Amino acid sequence: MNKPAPVQPVRGALRPLGLDETRLTGGYWGRRQRVNAETTIRHCLHWLEELGWLDNFDKAAAGAPFERSGREFSDSEIYKLAEAMAWEIGRTGSDELEARFTRLTERVAAAQRPDGYLSTMFGSPGQRPRYCDLEWGHELYCFGHLIQAAVARLRTRGEDGFVRVARRVADHVCDTFGPGGIERICGHAEIEVALAEFARATGERRYLDQAKLFIDRHGRHTLAEGGFGRHYYQDDVPIREVEVLRGHAVRAFYLASGAVDVAVDTGDEELLEALRRQWDRTLARRTHITGGLGSQYTDEAIGEDFALPPDRAYSESCASVAAVMAAWRLLLATGDVSYADMIERSVWNVLAGAVDPGGEAFFYANPLHQRTADPDPVAGEVSHRAAGGRRAPWFDVSCCPTNLARTFASLAAYVATVDDGGLQLHQYMPANVSTRLPGGPIEVSVATEYPDDGAVAVTVDRNEAGPWTLRLRVPAWAEGATLTDPDGRTRPVAPGRADLTRDFAAGDTVRLDLPVAPRWSRPDPRIDAVRGCAAVERGPVVMCAESVDLPGGAGIADLSVDTGRAPAERDGAVAVAGHVHRRPDTWPYRASPGPERDREAAEIPLIPFHLRDTRGPAAMRVWLPAE
Amino acid sequence: MNKPAPVQPVRGALRPLGLDETRLTGGYWGRRQRVNAETTIRHCLHWLEELGWLDNFDKAAAGAPFERSGREFSDSEIYKLAEAMAWEIGRTGSDELEARFTRLTERVAAAQRPDGYLSTMFGSPGQRPRYCDLEWGHELYCFGHLIQAAVARLRTRGEDGFVRVARRVADHVCDTFGPGGIERICGHAEIEVALAEFARATGERRYLDQAKLFIDRHGRHTLAEGGFGRHYYQDDVPIREVEVLRGHAVRAFYLASGAVDVAVDTGDEELLEALRRQWDRTLARRTHITGGLGSQYTDEAIGEDFALPPDRAYSESCASVAAVMAAWRLLLATGDVSYADMIERSVWNVLAGAVDPGGEAFFYANPLHQRTADPDPVAGEVSHRAAGGRRAPWFDVSCCPTNLARTFASLAAYVATVDDGGLQLHQYMPANVSTRLPGGPIEVSVATEYPDDGAVAVTVDRNEAGPWTLRLRVPAWAEGATLTDPDGRTRPVAPGRADLTRDFAAGDTVRLDLPVAPRWSRPDPRIDAVRGCAAVERGPVVMCAESVDLPGGAGIADLSVDTGRAPAERDGAVAVAGHVHRRPDTWPYRASPGPERDREAAEIPLIPFHLRDTRGPAAMRVWLPAE
Repeated sequence: MNKPAPVQPVRGALRPLGLDETRLTGGYWGRRQRVNAETTIRHCLHWLEELGWLDNFDKAAAGAPFERSGREFSDSEIYKLAEAMAWEIGRTGSDELEARFTRLTERVAAAQRPDGYLSTMFGSPGQRPRYCDLEWGHELYCFGHLIQAAVARLRTRGEDGFVRVARRVADHVCDTFGPGGIERICGHAEIEVALAEFARATGERRYLDQAKLFIDRHGRHTLAEGGFGRHYYQDDVPIREVEVLRGHAVRAFYLASGAVDVAVDTGDEELLEALRRQWDRTLARRTHITGGLGSQYTDEAIGEDFALPPDRAYSESCASVAAVMAAWRLLLATGDVSYADMIERSVWNVLAGAVDPGGEAFFYANPLHQRTADPDPVAGEVSHRAAGGRRAPWFDVSCCPTNLARTFASLAAYVATVDDGGLQLHQYMPANVSTRLPGGPIEVSVATEYPDDGAVAVTVDRNEAGPWTLRLRVPAWAEGATLTDPDGRTRPVAPGRADLTRDFAAGDTVRLDLPVAPRWSRPDPRIDAVRGCAAVERGPVVMCAESVDLPGGAGIADLSVDTGRAPAERDGAVAVAGHVHRRPDTWPYRASPGPERDREAAEIPLIPFHLRDTRGPAAMRVWLPAE
Repeated sequence: MNKPAPVQPVRGALRPLGLDETRLTGGYWGRRQRVNAETTIRHCLHWLEELGWLDNFDKAAAGAPFERSGREFSDSEIYKLAEAMAWEIGRTGSDELEARFTRLTERVAAAQRPDGYLSTMFGSPGQRPRYCDLEWGHELYCFGHLIQAAVARLRTRGEDGFVRVARRVADHVCDTFGPGGIERICGHAEIEVALAEFARATGERRYLDQAKLFIDRHGRHTLAEGGFGRHYYQDDVPIREVEVLRGHAVRAFYLASGAVDVAVDTGDEELLEALRRQWDRTLARRTHITGGLGSQYTDEAIGEDFALPPDRAYSESCASVAAVMAAWRLLLATGDVSYADMIERSVWNVLAGAVDPGGEAFFYANPLHQRTADPDPVAGEVSHRAAGGRRAPWFDVSCCPTNLARTFASLAAYVATVDDGGLQLHQYMPANVSTRLPGGPIEVSVATEYPDDGAVAVTVDRNEAGPWTLRLRVPAWAEGATLTDPDGRTRPVAPGRADLTRDFAAGDTVRLDLPVAPRWSRPDPRIDAVRGCAAVERGPVVMCAESVDLPGGAGIADLSVDTGRAPAERDGAVAVAGHVHRRPDTWPYRASPGPERDREAAEIPLIPFHLRDTRGPAAMRVWLPAE
């Protein structure tokens, strides 16, 4: 049961594959994964040392009062990076990373207290006492990330020093927060999803019970109201009564992920149904076209129904990491491919762009409209600007780099699943799948340049399982897709899933053709902030206009587009027809919107949103005013 | 030169009148002024006592270390309230208020240090030293409000204990921040406008010189960058090089006000021109239809060009107080009536609504779109929510109640001006004006129910000045206005100003008829957040829809309106034709915006925006999606 994969429910419609069963073999994500391994992980280690966030552990271990570096949750960055390293060691067996991991384990372990408690922020001489500030202290949040790293470690290398630290932490949490203990929650959800998975990885039922306790305690007002209100940390309403995800976006989706785990492993259908309803309404009313989540800067929160301003979209990188976590768990539980659609949307439009192609600069937030061309960040300087602007090497609140690193390192886990009837492919990237069906082993390889090209060739390289069903996801936007079977027969397939059942012979190739030509998308009329606009999507990839491509020095506010004409594509370059306008500056509210005489026809080039801000300072917009 | 009026430049196109020359005689603003005097001032005093913000002065005077209440700028609330009381005492001669003012003066004076320094936040035993945190300490900001109150006092009652306190503060500031002293600025502009006016009121040139020093120091990076960047406190760019107002909205307009004063009194035409350009561009690109300013919650800032989201409009009440201050100064300097248009817009749409009709509840921010019907605030509880929601009795940052109180108490000052050629009427409300032109005294009375009705009757009750020109502002929206002279001859007048020159006889009545029928207004196409929408304005009053008026339980997100049909008005009630929609919840971005079959025709009642949230919980919107 302990495959090297982040999520392994005890039951569900689909079963995950291990990272030893699915491997990326190249293409865009193969490259990104290599950059992550070779550059990003090292970059993060450098900053954690540079800023003293790792030193905090040495100082806490020493026992004397010390000046601590970083915010109250900085321990978690070490743990998220440890998780990234663990997956990466599992993937490549890197001795160098293993040596670093061992050293890191020693430093973390040295700071653990005899009763299992482990924090560089609380409880040491001169510090505030443990658990004096559950609202903002982030102790259990940090523990959760430590435990998730231990899950990765246990499933890739087995029991070791790091895992032992995590076991003692988890036991301490159960002892302290179990029935009759501190019957409260942590202000930042994370311990729930971590304990639930640790229960799976260790077989310790008490961890699942504790996760369930925390889940059920949300909404019981065990936290103080605080400046942002209890909905901020999902303590306003019990989870079963919630209608739509709300409050701090990362917290909301971490909590939902843990709740799915608990619902599945305890067989709680009512809770699972509630979570599905919440998910559906969140997607219908509170999600950006990029899959991005969160519209409020002040509290990094999801915001109200239909409040989805592209310029002030918060769309935190970590919120999309969290949404992928939740979507994957719902997909495994239900088999509903729409969850995989959301994973694809998040991966291509938020995660892909959140890390610079070079792997050393990050977007904390991912707004869909950048009004000004901001200057380059100062090299080597920590950014205090969480929102918009340019990618930065590090932040004072630097949750995204390590979160992205652990996700990229384990990305292959989200490509495919199995059930008793066969194999399901969810994400299309060059990959090999080698697994076992009830009838015997199979091997499948995927060759594709998707989403640049819509052709996905799936070749069965080995089949000792007899007849089984190959199920291919057809994204919701893919009207007009076709499936070609190994005999060369082509048939149309509707959005949803395309099944082909066969006793495959080695070398049999199934081809899915997805219509990735660029297309116009219009928003629900209730989304005020983008009314009267259209966006171009190309397959799963949301496109944007950047000011550096505009004709004649036009500004990003001066565009309009002709949505009556299909977006054009030539040699992979996408453009739309429209106009650039010159408008006078007067009092801007008048009986008529003003003459449109002073405009010039223009062809407006578009690039993938995830490639924005890779060519120097630029203003940018996804939503284009329609003529 | 010391008329009882807040602003008295040494030169300019127009001359202000004193509050002894212009009096409101009834109508809407007469009532509001009475409620302000009888209720709001007392309400503010109650809270200042209740929360210990006044006690801080007693404790600071006592000299022992003490636990201080309130935020770092709470002293300023006492001073703003003192200013409101001073204007009110000047207006009504209330003995009761005078007794309160005297007692307050004693408590403030007792806390002043021998060298003139006066703060309950810094410099006392156990407190941080003076001026250790110019970025956030607000010491000079508080001094500024103290000095403005002293201006009011000096001009209504003459030299007294309060004025003496202010003189010593102002001298201390000049001694400390003059050439060779601390050559920096305060993080919150206010001292500039205060010192400039105090120079006028006292005849002390050094106060003007010091104001000019502070103005010129802005943009010289004498403050640390800070979390919001230097533009937040207008320390990014020297004021003459600024293109558009930016950063914290209240700071920006207080600074602009002081800069106009300095430009006018020093004859600095270049600076005045720069400020006019900044103003014009700010209005064209960064101002809500209500006149509200500020689109960013996080830093209460103005935001970027065309970033004007109605739902996340910050539009702080104090920013409109500050904008009225700046507009009035620009109007006096230039005579350009468009500044009076902006005053009217701000007064009717922000200030009027910022205080509950009962005078005891306030909006800190004034967004134009309230998505949810929020519950009543808890009675007697300080609100921590600066933005949106419901009016609250007090805030932890409670700058608006006292700021509105001082503005309401002195509102008559903004009604009329004179120049050598005659009298100019800028704001239309029932009022008497009794002043002196070069040729002799005149008396004029204004009778009107504007803006409910468009007729403004101006009667010359006395004229011993010979021939002079009555100039009436014709608002920019008032296409089709007419002027009827005392002989009953009616002529059309274009937006701008309507002049009538005559040797008026006592009893002569001039009538201005403004077309106040409700009309559609459309936004500049560059304002993304309200694209495809229209708003209704009725005269200067912006209208809104509230959910309590919608047919069949429709939500505020479910409306659309037919802008091809003029808004209807019957017995003062305004309504527009449109539809309410029922739309399914699906993934909201699709090839077509979805069918519009499931809709019903509806008549949608509108109320003045300033009357929102006076009938219980309601969602609300100004901008209505156009069909």
